[in-house]
This record gives sequence, C-alpha cells and structure tokens, in this order.
Amino acid sequence: MCLHGTGETVRARTRGTEADAPPAAPTGQRTLGYRRVADLSHVVSPSMPTFDPEKPRREAVDPPLADGAFGFFQQRWTFLEHTGTHLDAPGHVIGGGRLVPDIRSEELVVPAVVIDVRARAAQDPDTVVTVEDVERHEREHGPVPAGAAVLMCSGWDARWGQGDDQVRGVAADGSWHFPGFDPQACEYLVSRRAISGVGVDTLSTDPGASSDFPAHEVIGRADRWGLEALTGLDRLPPTGATLMVGVFPGEDASGGPSRVLALW
Amino acid sequence: MCLHGTGETVRARTRGTEADAPPAAPTGQRTLGYRRVADLSHVVSPSMPTFDPEKPRREAVDPPLADGAFGFFQQRWTFLEHTGTHLDAPGHVIGGGRLVPDIRSEELVVPAVVIDVRARAAQDPDTVVTVEDVERHEREHGPVPAGAAVLMCSGWDARWGQGDDQVRGVAADGSWHFPGFDPQACEYLVSRRAISGVGVDTLSTDPGASSDFPAHEVIGRADRWGLEALTGLDRLPPTGATLMVGVFPGEDASGGPSRVLALW
Repeated sequence: MCLHGTGETVRARTRGTEADAPPAAPTGQRTLGYRRVADLSHVVSPSMPTFDPEKPRREAVDPPLADGAFGFFQQRWTFLEHTGTHLDAPGHVIGGGRLVPDIRSEELVVPAVVIDVRARAAQDPDTVVTVEDVERHEREHGPVPAGAAVLMCSGWDARWGQGDDQVRGVAADGSWHFPGFDPQACEYLVSRRAISGVGVDTLSTDPGASSDFPAHEVIGRADRWGLEALTGLDRLPPTGATLMVGVFPGEDASGGPSRVLALW
Repeated sequence: MCLHGTGETVRARTRGTEADAPPAAPTGQRTLGYRRVADLSHVVSPSMPTFDPEKPRREAVDPPLADGAFGFFQQRWTFLEHTGTHLDAPGHVIGGGRLVPDIRSEELVVPAVVIDVRARAAQDPDTVVTVEDVERHEREHGPVPAGAAVLMCSGWDARWGQGDDQVRGVAADGSWHFPGFDPQACEYLVSRRAISGVGVDTLSTDPGASSDFPAHEVIGRADRWGLEALTGLDRLPPTGATLMVGVFPGEDASGGPSRVLALW
C-alpha cells in the first residue's frame, strides 16, 4: 500500500540507521524436501482489487495471433510497484532504506510460518495477528525459524473476485476494515525471532482501519520486507513450507509485483 | 524478443494443437539440497539493453523520503512483456498457445543444465547451441533430466553495461550478431529429453542473425517456455542447480519480466 511521503531524496543501498541487522543467511548445506509447488500470487489485471485507486493497465502492442499461427504477440503493462501480490522493500516506507535491488537472494528463499486467523477474521474484520498468536503457534508447531516469513492467513483472498469494496472492507461510513498485523507482533518477530519478513492475504500489513501504519514502520525500520495480497495460504502447512519470492527487479524500486511460490 | 504477428484473436488456456505434451510434474517426494542462492536476473531500468526499441520507463509517483523519515515512496513502471530477464510463454509466438497464467507452478521450479559455449562465442558471435553440444554435455555430466531448463552460457551478459549495440552485436552493415539456440537442438531437447524450457544469456533464444526465429517456433509449438537475458550463468554448475522462475503474473500475458533464482 502507499500514501504520500514527505521526503526529498532516495538514498538506496543503505539501511535505515535505526534498523536491526537483517537475519544472516544460514550457512552450510540446506535441504529442502517437497512434494508440492503452489502459486501464492494473484494474476495482475486491470480489474483487480488494489489499495491505491490506480489500476494496472495493459494493451496489446502486437496483434494477437490466429490459432496455430506463428508470429509474435505481446502486451505493454503500466502499474504501481505496490500492485497485486507484491513485496514492500524497507525503502518503501523508510527514507534511505533498502530498495528491491538491495535485497539479497538469500532473503527471497525462506521458511514459511502460517498463522491462521480465519475464524476470528470471519467475525471481526479488524482483527490483528498478536504476540499471543505467535506464542500459541509456537506452542503448537514449534519455534519460528530464523529467517522465516511469518504469514497471516485471514481467508481474505476469497473476496478477490468480489471487487474493491469487499476486499477493502468498506463500511457504511466509508472506513476500511480488513485484518493485518499488530505492530507489537512485528516488533516481537523482528527482535526475538530474526524473521526475514511478514506477509498478509489482505491489501496491507497494517489492518484496513489503520491510519498511521505502525506495522509498516516497525518492519521498515527493522530493514525487513513485507508481502501483501498473497493468496492460497490456507493450503500451506502451519510450518515446514519454503517460500520463494520472485519480486520484479526494478531499479530503485520500493517494491514490486511478485510471483511467490511455496514448496512443501 | 518480439516482431509483429499476423493473427486475429488470442485463445488462451489451450495448447497449440501441434504441441507435444509438456513434461509431467515429477510425483512423490523431491529433495533439493543447496548452499547457495543466486540471482540470475538483470535489474530492469530505462537504460537497459533490449531487443525491442522501446525501453522500460519509471516515474516516482510519491516523493522520495528524507533519510530516516517514515512515509511512502513508490514508482510507476511501464514496459513490454519481453523486457529484461524474462519468460516467453508458448502463446508469445503460437496463436492459441498457453499464456503466463496457464503455466503450472511445477514448470517454474526445475533442474538447470548449463551448456557453456563461452569459448566459441568469444570467437564467433553467431555460434549456436547444437545437438552435438547437448550430447557432449551429457557424456561429461550425465543425462539432461526430464523437466529441465537447458541454459546457454555464452558470456554475453558481460556486455550488459555497454549499451544496445554491444549486446545486440551490431555489425558495420547494421546486422545483429549474438549466440542462441539451433532449432534442431531445441527439437532434440523437447522430443527426446522432455525439457520444461530453454534459456539464454542473450536477447533472444534464436541467434541475433536470425530472421525467421525457428528456435522460437520449435519451443512455442512444443508448448514449452523460453527464458531470455539471463545473467550470471557462469557461476552455476553444469548440472545440479535448481531454477525458480518468478515470472510476472500478468493477465493474458505472452511473457513477463522474471526474477530467476538458482539454488545449488
């Protein structure tokens, strides 16, 4: 998601001065066993729900081909970096924070931990992932591994075909309501669990009703990334999957549409 | 790469009628051991070399942030689908062929085989990967596994900072010269080795001097994908790495910029 900033210059390739060190890449041999590869990304289209009012645009620059014909067909795309399933780099929200090209490859292949808040979210669209949720998850499924992506499964992705108002959770007074992360949970995960980042299946890491976006600030100042608008998290195990984050490698990019795959 | 097509309608989500079946996903438990994660993608920028004359464009839609300030910064991007390190879907070149959303997740996590033609390419920019190259590689490194991505390492990515003319290999008469795949090698790999796709570290699967693009046609009719403009293939082992292809998930997309990671 995105609001207007207030700064002057982008200083890429440095970290925010208040940031904790991002997790060191594990060293030595790692083994990844899997039977399934799942796509956690929405298809990007001009009609897709978005946080910003602007929608992605596409146009055919070479004419579509007749069935079986050999030729060349392609489209041109225009979109904001925070469109569809996408990654927020630290520099999206913190001046001088790392931008997409500064994120190391090792930070894009990480263990996934899925915190299921679907039952609560069905009752309360303003629910957030709390420290207690993390502690309960660890009691049931073991510790959050260093370098993990901690993902909120709220079930909100089921609304994707229903238009902006459903996905934004627009109330009668125009306010927005969808689940997200409590900033204290982000602080806990960053400082005590050395995560690589967090992820949500809603439009923003902060819940829809937030106006000051504290979860974004905690994650950004800690030099970690956030994934927004994931889909299909309900298929993943609570722990044990590996996430591969294929973020669009734009120059000076604050984030980018991402093909996110999960292996388990 | 891209030339003007001659067809009328896009029929997505069907395969070309002449296509062989794409390789079935392996079943059962797979194990991926690795020590390294490498990024095989170029950063997308307005100054990057491209096959098409049109360059990607970016603009800041929210102002950059002052150092340490909290706010929101982001850019808007406009580009052709065949820009930067990118995937060609079968429907890029064959009418009715599969488009990006039709490619299964299992086809995006595949074994990598790297065929090193750097010595030849340094002497002859028109060199191509041949059936004999594949056979020699198999004698030295073992069989190309089913579902593999077979990648040409020509060393051409070292030219990336040197501008379009160097990357396109423009001769005095204006003709283009860079290495690619011989269509017979593509046919061999598709029909006898059940590959998922091919990849090159140049601007096109066909060599720069080609005017009829037969390697594109073979790969497209066989319902396989191609990766173009990879970088860093010289770091990969000849066999044993795993490729993760994070292609931009555009609606009806003929291809898309891709974050390609290799694990080994």
